[in-house]
Order: sequence, then structure tokens, then C-alpha cells
Amino acid sequence: MAEPPKEIPTHPALTPAGSSTADGETSKKGAKKAAAKAAKEAEKARKAAEREAAQLAQSAAASEDLAVENYGDIKHTTKLPAEKIHLKNIQEENVGKTITVRAWIQNARMQGAKMAFVELREEGNWTIQGVVSASAEGKPVSKQMVKWIGSLKLESFVAVEAVVQKPLELVKSTKVQGFELHLQKCYLVAAAPEMLGLGLGAASRAVGKLDDEDISEATENLVITEGTPVASLAVHLNNPAMHKRAPVSQAIADVRIAVEDLFCEYLRTRGFKKFHPPSLIGAASEGGANVFRLPYFGKEAFLAQSPQFYKQFEIAGGRKRVYCVGPVFRAENSNTPRHMTEFIGLDLEMEIEEHYHEVLHTLEGVLLHIFKGLRDNYREEIELIRSIYPSEEFLLPEEGKEVRLTFAEGQALLRAEGPPEFANVTDDEDMSTPQEKALGALIRKKYNTDFYVLDKFPIDARPFYALPDPENPKVTNAYDFMMRGQEILSGGQRVHLPHELEKTIKAKGLDPNQPGIKEYVDVFRSVGVPPHGGGGIGLDRVVAWYLNLPSVHLAADYPRTPKRLAP
Amino acid sequence: MAEPPKEIPTHPALTPAGSSTADGETSKKGAKKAAAKAAKEAEKARKAAEREAAQLAQSAAASEDLAVENYGDIKHTTKLPAEKIHLKNIQEENVGKTITVRAWIQNARMQGAKMAFVELREEGNWTIQGVVSASAEGKPVSKQMVKWIGSLKLESFVAVEAVVQKPLELVKSTKVQGFELHLQKCYLVAAAPEMLGLGLGAASRAVGKLDDEDISEATENLVITEGTPVASLAVHLNNPAMHKRAPVSQAIADVRIAVEDLFCEYLRTRGFKKFHPPSLIGAASEGGANVFRLPYFGKEAFLAQSPQFYKQFEIAGGRKRVYCVGPVFRAENSNTPRHMTEFIGLDLEMEIEEHYHEVLHTLEGVLLHIFKGLRDNYREEIELIRSIYPSEEFLLPEEGKEVRLTFAEGQALLRAEGPPEFANVTDDEDMSTPQEKALGALIRKKYNTDFYVLDKFPIDARPFYALPDPENPKVTNAYDFMMRGQEILSGGQRVHLPHELEKTIKAKGLDPNQPGIKEYVDVFRSVGVPPHGGGGIGLDRVVAWYLNLPSVHLAADYPRTPKRLAP
Repeated sequence: MAEPPKEIPTHPALTPAGSSTADGETSKKGAKKAAAKAAKEAEKARKAAEREAAQLAQSAAASEDLAVENYGDIKHTTKLPAEKIHLKNIQEENVGKTITVRAWIQNARMQGAKMAFVELREEGNWTIQGVVSASAEGKPVSKQMVKWIGSLKLESFVAVEAVVQKPLELVKSTKVQGFELHLQKCYLVAAAPEMLGLGLGAASRAVGKLDDEDISEATENLVITEGTPVASLAVHLNNPAMHKRAPVSQAIADVRIAVEDLFCEYLRTRGFKKFHPPSLIGAASEGGANVFRLPYFGKEAFLAQSPQFYKQFEIAGGRKRVYCVGPVFRAENSNTPRHMTEFIGLDLEMEIEEHYHEVLHTLEGVLLHIFKGLRDNYREEIELIRSIYPSEEFLLPEEGKEVRLTFAEGQALLRAEGPPEFANVTDDEDMSTPQEKALGALIRKKYNTDFYVLDKFPIDARPFYALPDPENPKVTNAYDFMMRGQEILSGGQRVHLPHELEKTIKAKGLDPNQPGIKEYVDVFRSVGVPPHGGGGIGLDRVVAWYLNLPSVHLAADYPRTPKRLAP
Repeated sequence: MAEPPKEIPTHPALTPAGSSTADGETSKKGAKKAAAKAAKEAEKARKAAEREAAQLAQSAAASEDLAVENYGDIKHTTKLPAEKIHLKNIQEENVGKTITVRAWIQNARMQGAKMAFVELREEGNWTIQGVVSASAEGKPVSKQMVKWIGSLKLESFVAVEAVVQKPLELVKSTKVQGFELHLQKCYLVAAAPEMLGLGLGAASRAVGKLDDEDISEATENLVITEGTPVASLAVHLNNPAMHKRAPVSQAIADVRIAVEDLFCEYLRTRGFKKFHPPSLIGAASEGGANVFRLPYFGKEAFLAQSPQFYKQFEIAGGRKRVYCVGPVFRAENSNTPRHMTEFIGLDLEMEIEEHYHEVLHTLEGVLLHIFKGLRDNYREEIELIRSIYPSEEFLLPEEGKEVRLTFAEGQALLRAEGPPEFANVTDDEDMSTPQEKALGALIRKKYNTDFYVLDKFPIDARPFYALPDPENPKVTNAYDFMMRGQEILSGGQRVHLPHELEKTIKAKGLDPNQPGIKEYVDVFRSVGVPPHGGGGIGLDRVVAWYLNLPSVHLAADYPRTPKRLAP
């Protein structure tokens, strides 16, 4: 049994043994100075490594290496016949047996001249301690082999053959604590560079500066504040492989997958049919603001801002209930943590049989299904994320006690109990973001929920396809759904009769026969279309706001902003 | 019990009672003449309808209408309290009971002055016969009400209250044959126009002319050939609501949903994680040909031609297995039934542990899962589609007898047993489409399968990221999967080491540091990335070729071609 090493930091700091890592936090003052210092230290480390390698080569030449076949760069002919096993599946019955593991080097350090410790990591943040010590006879492990393993660069990928053993005491720095691996073969499958652009330590911490500059020379953001390496969002996104390898990033991505799957599962089992709206469209449908344009075989094309019209075409085409998942585009020059130019929309549309609250209740149902699914089955991921990005528990309404206010009731509550600056809000104008947040706080206090519905939005706050309430033409059969005081879903009943549509289009100062609108109205002119309604959710925002992340860019797989198109 | 009407055609022909329908086949000769004739007849029908309406108004004024509350335009206050039931769920126990149904008028005709027959249709092509006859006392049904129902325009949407009855004999023209509905109330929810741009009859038949001109004035395509109304693809696509209402279109869309769901299900249960690659990218990654470009906040952006690089970034980012579903874009001016400018890609990428055939077998597994899922669970849809678009059974290999040839073996088979023009094909050049089809026919004959793999493609036929075979650098660890002699999937093992990548990039005459490529290579320079491989399928093509549709545009929800951006 090997003694556990005294100090293998879970999160490698600036210059751990065997490799150099640069983590950073931006502070404008002294940024360059610190960067220069970091570069200098890295150079120092590199030279030391070179000296070490030279010594190693000398000593290797001096004494024959009997383990030479058991380590080094992997060849395509290399065989590792022992049972392959994933770290999470190692059990008592494996003790004493030889297994094969393929993993990343999360840490590596020498312990004297004859022993080295490594931490090996697999998907899902499963880590285990590996031990390698030179045998007296020089095989299967030689001193040269130990040195080679102890100096492997962090985040290299290796294939090892090892015997499973129980450590003298539980290993605290790894997820697998009751077992360790005694390496007998170790091959380098893919080497990491001398210096990582972002170390796993900083990648695993909360991002610092949120303003994403997408600078290709990210040195300004690579500043190290001693003891607390924190990297800016830009550094994270410019180092996608390391950013994504961090356990917190993997957990966020897993939650994101769950949200989409829960959305689809709920709808599929309720008779909703999936379809794919196009991204390329022939006309800017909703007025032409904030739409990307591109040359298209001598004409002009546009990128869809929402699947709205196409969801409705599906209903016109004889489907009772449809949903879709796909990218939508906004050419809005908004550089905030709330905005992206491309994001994934989760949308649904359905026939209304008697009342548009059938739609409202379905949307409420699907969101509650998502929130409860996360709460019940993603506790571990959420706890991990919370340890990096703190958040209060997302409060859900009790079953049958869902909170639904009309827009006017919301405004009345704000006037009566909100901050003094909202004492005179009216029922005819849309809410501002600060108003929404203040109302969210009031509702959390009053109803103990972070999730609620605002119904009957004023007509001026809605697009032309929103159906006016037949009992009160100043408001619409349209609603917003709110999470932690922020709008997460917008939807409502649509106008389904062509002559009514012409009226509402004209009321907005538009022409029912203008390009992009005419083709839409024509579909309703071409057949009888039943009453219908729906709503759309931004996948990234649901994830970010459920988890209370500081930026929606942390929820996206590859965020797109006015300043960022890469990687 | 009502007598069934003598002739309610299942597919309404040119001018059925109650509405006019224009179906058409294009024949350049005489097209305008026929169109003019059709317009004339429509005008005649309209005038006749006006006269009829005037007469009706007169007679209504003459005798009081006691059923006036039981029909007409629906109001938002209208209540239909009887049990709502879907047509497919009507059973013996409903006989004699009053139910509510919301459906389309698929056909309507008067039978004398006091009785009318309608066909009502719901989603999934469920149709039922409705009967309405005036009672002696004039309520609940009056003569006026019968006339009004008998003259409803086809494809209008209605809400009816009716008593379920058993017809004297089975109704042959509807899907529900053992029951009929005796209407007592009928409200018009949404009226169809006088003249449909495409009738359900033509919409339900195979498309005629495939060359999609996307003309806004589609009269040329609206020509009627007596007895056999057939509409061109352009007419279908210009009338999306009616095109989609056709049972064959709904069945194709259902098969398409199944392909996507089966793909995702197979991978999800095997540890694959979903992600969303971006559509907007900062550089034309694969040489710059056939890529859409757009202005992007003072810079230039491009639309992704594939998720290739991003799938690999996910592997670099610590995922073992990933998949994605989303649009990809090709700015190729190809106006053929095989091409689209936007289509849905189903892609996967996975870590390779020992041999790239792990990937090949996974891809084979997912495709066989799709094909078997369709064969076993979508028999009805496939039969319906085959009745319109004939196709031979899609032959699958026996389990354990999957057909895998190397590219060289495929070429040898072509040389030995193929048509004489392929007697001299070489092992170094990519196959042409005619070669592929000839080989497909040979393999079907020899191995009794429409699905097989061609492995080890020559290096010149593959992009720079394809890994050369370490044993034979003239070929790659890359494969195509074939369906009915056409390529449906392209994939292989990727180069995962940055210095090897630099070599293969240079070998293709490209620069490893050029924009778009540098950012890609940088990811492999930034960390150690394990060996990996994958493949991508075009969703629309899998559907079209499995069903042997004459055009991939019939498989897409909203096909995009150089000539078509609408609806």
C-alpha cells in the first residue's frame, strides 16, 4: 500500500509539479505587470523542465531501462488487453485485479526519486489516485518510467494498465476515495502543451469579469491574483476545451440537456408533434428590426427571429399540437449578460378547443415538469453549480395553487406595495425590467413562489398576431411567464381569421400586403384555421435563471454575441 | 337511420357541391387556356352560390327559422357543453349519446331540400360521415340550417354537436365506417375561401412536375388534366396548409419525427450527450466554397456547413460521446431533387478506445435501430405513403451479417460485375453517383440488402481531418454508409494530434494558420484530446430515400432551395 502524498491540490494552482498552468483574474491595474511576471515564471518552469528532461535522458543512457516497453508515446500497435473499466464502476471485487483505464492527467508529482502520484480523470468528474513506484529489479516499472510519469503535462490523455488496490486511508482529493490504481503501464495518447491557457483550477471557479471582449490576445485577462486564480468570461470562452472540462461547466451542460429533454418528453407524451421551422426566410417578418440579412442567389434572405409563423402554419396544415427546438437569431447590438445573437428556442403551438387557458395550463405544466424534474433528479449537479454560483432554492407553487395574475393585478400590486418609483405605473404600458424584478420580489414574499404567470397583457405591448380579448379590446389573450422576476416565456392566443388579422396588422401601422406579412395572412386566407395559441422559451435563459448564473453565456454551449463568433 | 349518399367522392374533384377546388397538373401546352377555363368555371360557381344564397335569404325571410341559434358563425360566448370526443375514440357505448366534435369540412352536399351530408376530418386523417336533416317542426334543425350546412366551403373548420348513430350500412368513404353523426348544432369556426389553391384531392396525390419554380403566380402549374388532377411540387409548396393536410404529407412528417426520435433515443440510452453547435460562425471553416456569408456588426459571419469542428470541441472538452440535431447550410446553386440549401443534420462523435470500428458499429447500430423501428412501428404510415409513392421494401441485412466492404473491394466488384463503363474504375478516386448506384444494385443482388458500409476511402476523397490509415497512408479510417445505392452518412476517425493535423492540412494545400483552421487546430494544441470519430446523417435524405420519394423536398418540413425561401 502506498502512502498518500502529503499535498496534491484538488485544483492545481499556478505551477504544480510537472506542468505550468496559468489561471487569471482581470484587474485593470497592474494587469500587464502580472502577466509579464506569469510569463517569466512559465519560462522559468519550462527551463527547469528542460534541465530535468536532459538529466533524465543522461541517467537513462547510463542505466538500461528494463521497463522501456511499458511507457511512452502510444503506437497504433500498442495493446492493453486487461479489462477496461470506468472509474465510477470500480468495486471491491476489482481489488487485486489488473484493469485498463483511459483518462486525463489531472495532476502529477514526484515523491522522491522512485515514486510518483497522479490524479486521473474521466467524464463526469470521476477522479482516482494513481501510484507508480520503481521496482527493485527495474520492471515492470523502472526509475525512468516513474520520472516520465511524474512529469506528464496536466490535461494530457493517457492509457494505463494498473492493479486496483485499497489505499491506507481514504483519498480525500479524488472522487473515488476507497480505491487507488498501481500503474504498471502508462502510454501517452495525446500530450497537453507545456502551458495551459486556462487551468482546471480557474476553469472550475466562478468567472470574474463578465464583459466578454473576445480578444484573440487574451493576456490582459490572464492576470493572476495570488491565491485566488479567477479567469474572466473571455478567457473561459477562448479556451473552450478547458472551460468545458471544469465540473461546473459539465454540470450546467447536463442541466441544459435535462431541460430540453423534459420539455420534449412532456409534449411528446401529450400528442405534440415535432417539426423543424426554417432558419432561412424570404422576408423580415416582424417589421425588419434586429434581423440578420444575407445575399441569397441574387436575392436577399433573412435569419428567422422566431418560429412563430411556422408553428401557426403547422396548425393550419392540420396538426392539433406541435413543438420545435432550434436556433433563432437576433441582430441586436446588446452587449449584456442577458443577450445573445443566436439562441435555442423551445416552442409550442396548439389548437384551442374552448378557451386559451388550455394553452396557458399546458405551458405551466411543461415548465413545472421541467422544474420538478431538475429538483428531483439533478440535485447533485445543482449542488455542485451552487457551490460555484450561489443561488437560493427556486421556489415552486404548491400543486393547484399556481399563481396567475392579470397584468393589471400585477401593476396594482406594484402600485400598492412596490417601491415608491412604481407608485404610478399604468395598466396600458408594458413593464420595464426593474418593474418586473420588483414585482417578482413582491410575489415571492406574498405567494412563496419564483414562478408565476402574468396574463392579459395590454394591446400596445403585444405584436399584431396577439388576439384582443373579446370582452375588453384594450388587453389581449396573451401572457408572460416569469422566473425569479424575469420573463422567461411569452405567448398567447393568435388571431386566426384573416379579416381580423388585417385589422390588427393595420392597427399597428403595418400593411397586410407588405412582403413577409402578406405570405403569412395568405395562409389564413387559403383555408379555415382553428383557434390556436402557444408560447416560446429561451433554453439558455431558463437554465441561467433557474441556476441564477451571472450570465446567460455560461448556459449556452457556444454563446454568440455581437463581439463573439468563435470558437 | 339516414341513407348513405350515393356518391361522396373521398377526394373532392374539381367542383364538388358546396365549394370549388382547383387541382392541377402542369403541361406547358395549353396551360394558360386551361387556367382561363378553370377561372371561368370558378366564376360561374361563385355566381351560382350567390344566387343560391340570395334565394336562401328570401326563403328564410319568408318562413321563420326556429333553429337560428343552432348554426352560423361561432361567437366567443357560444357553448357546446356535450362531451368532446375524438373521432378515433368513438365506440358502441357512444351510440345514442350527444357529443361535440371540432373538425374540418372535407366534403358537403345537399340530398334533396331537407337533408345534407358532410364528411368531417380530424388530425391523423380520421374522417366520419355527418348527416343533417330538417325536422318537421323546424327545430333543432330547420331547412335553412340544412342548406347552410350543405353549402359550407370545403376545408372550413366547424364545431358540431351531434348524436352518434349506426349507419344502415358501413360508410365506405370515411375512416370511421361503423358510426355516423346526426348533427343538431353546427357552428362555423373558420371559413375556407370560395376557391382552394390546392384541393385535398390533388394534395393527396403524387406531385407532378418536380422542378420547383417558386413562382408567386402559380397559375401555370394549376392546369387541370381531366380525371387526374395532379399538382406540381411548386403548387404543393405554395399552398402549405393544403399540402400538409394531405394524409400522405402527414404520414411522411410522422416518419420524419420517428427517424429523429429513434436516433436520439438510441444514443441517449448509450451515454451520448446532446449539445447545440452554433449556426453563426466567424470563419468559413472548410475552404470557403458553398458557404453563406452575412454582415455581422461591422465584421463578416458565415453559416455553418456542418457541426464537425464543434462535435470535436465537445470531445476535447471532456465528453466521451456527443450528438446533435440542427440545421446546416450549403450555398450551393444546385437545383435538383437531391439538394437543399438548409437541412437538418443528425450528427454524433465519440471517443475511440481501441479501434475506429467502435464508431462504425455505433453508426451501423443507430441506423439499423431507425430502420427496424420504422419497419416495426410505422407499417401503416409506410403503406399509405407507398400507395402514393411506390417503393420496394427496404432490405436490411440479417443480424450479424451486416455488409461492410472496403472502398477498394467495392471498386473491384464494380470492375468485375458492374456495367462496362465502370470496367476501369480505380481505387484512388472518389465514386461518382452513377457508380454508387450501380454498386448498390450489385450489392442488393448479391447480399440482399439496401444498407451497407464502404470503408477505407482513398485519402484524396476525404477532408484534411480524416485520419490516414496507419498501415496504408493512401487510404483513410473513413467510411460512407449507403441506402439504396446512395450515400446517406459520411464519417470516420479524425486526426487528434496537432502536429499530424498540421501535416494533413498542408497536404491539402491549406495553411494550418489561416482563419477558421487556426482556431480549430488551436483546440488540439491547447490540451490532450483522445482519439475520436463520428459521422453525420441528413435527416431529410434518410426519410426520402427510405421511402423512395421522388424528391428530398417532400421529406422536409419547409424545403429551402436556391429558388425557394417561402413560405
